Amino acid sequence: MNDMTDFKRSRCPIAVTLDVIGDRWTLVIARDLLFFGKRRFGDFADSPEGIPTNILTDRLKRMAAEGLVERVAYQDRPPRYEYLPTRKLRDLKPVLIEIVRWGNEHYPGTLRPGGAG
Amino acid sequence: MNDMTDFKRSRCPIAVTLDVIGDRWTLVIARDLLFFGKRRFGDFADSPEGIPTNILTDRLKRMAAEGLVERVAYQDRPPRYEYLPTRKLRDLKPVLIEIVRWGNEHYPGTLRPGGAG
Repeated sequence: MNDMTDFKRSRCPIAVTLDVIGDRWTLVIARDLLFFGKRRFGDFADSPEGIPTNILTDRLKRMAAEGLVERVAYQDRPPRYEYLPTRKLRDLKPVLIEIVRWGNEHYPGTLRPGGAG
Repeated sequence: MNDMTDFKRSRCPIAVTLDVIGDRWTLVIARDLLFFGKRRFGDFADSPEGIPTNILTDRLKRMAAEGLVERVAYQDRPPRYEYLPTRKLRDLKPVLIEIVRWGNEHYPGTLRPGGAG
C-alpha cells in the first residue's frame, strides 16, 4: 500500500476520504445512523432532506462496500435489511461534529444540537 | 432566517454545509489554499489530483459566491487573478484536520502531514 496504485487520485488523505464521503448525501445518512439511531431504508428515506430512493439505494450500497455500514437481514419473508454503523463509520463523528460547528457558525438559522434551533 | 426557506434541503447544519462543500473537489482546493499556500489557477490545476480545468473554474466560482475565497486581480493586461482564503474558509481547518486523521487511520498508505508518508 505504499505506492499510489491503490488510490484513485493521490495519496492525500483528504482526496482519498472525499472519494468515499465527498458527496451531498453520504454524511447525511451517517448523521441518521450515528446521531438519530436510524437503521432502516424507510427511516433514511423519511428524513427531512428527502433523499431520492434510487440515490439512497446507491449510497447504502457504496457505504457497505466501503465498510461504513454492515447490512444485516432482520426478516426473511420478504427479506428486509437493517444497516448497522461500523467502527469506521463511528470514527467519522469528529468530522461530523466539526461540520456541525462550522455550519452553525456560518449559517445562522441552522439547527443547534440540543438547542432551540 | 428562522424558517426553512433559506435552506435547500433542511435546517440541519450538516445538510447545509454539504450543499457548499459536499463534493470531491472543493475541500481539495481548500487544502491547497490553507495548507500549501496556493493562490493561482495554474497552481491548483498542477496539484497531483489533476482537477479538470472546467471543474476548477466552476468550483472557484462557487467558492467565491459562498465567501470561501476572495478573487483579487494581481495583473491587468492580460487580467490575472489570485484567490485568497477568507476567514470562513480558514474556519474549515478543523474539518480538514479530522478528515486527515480519519483518512490516515482507515487508509494505510495515505500521506501523513509532516510524516514520512
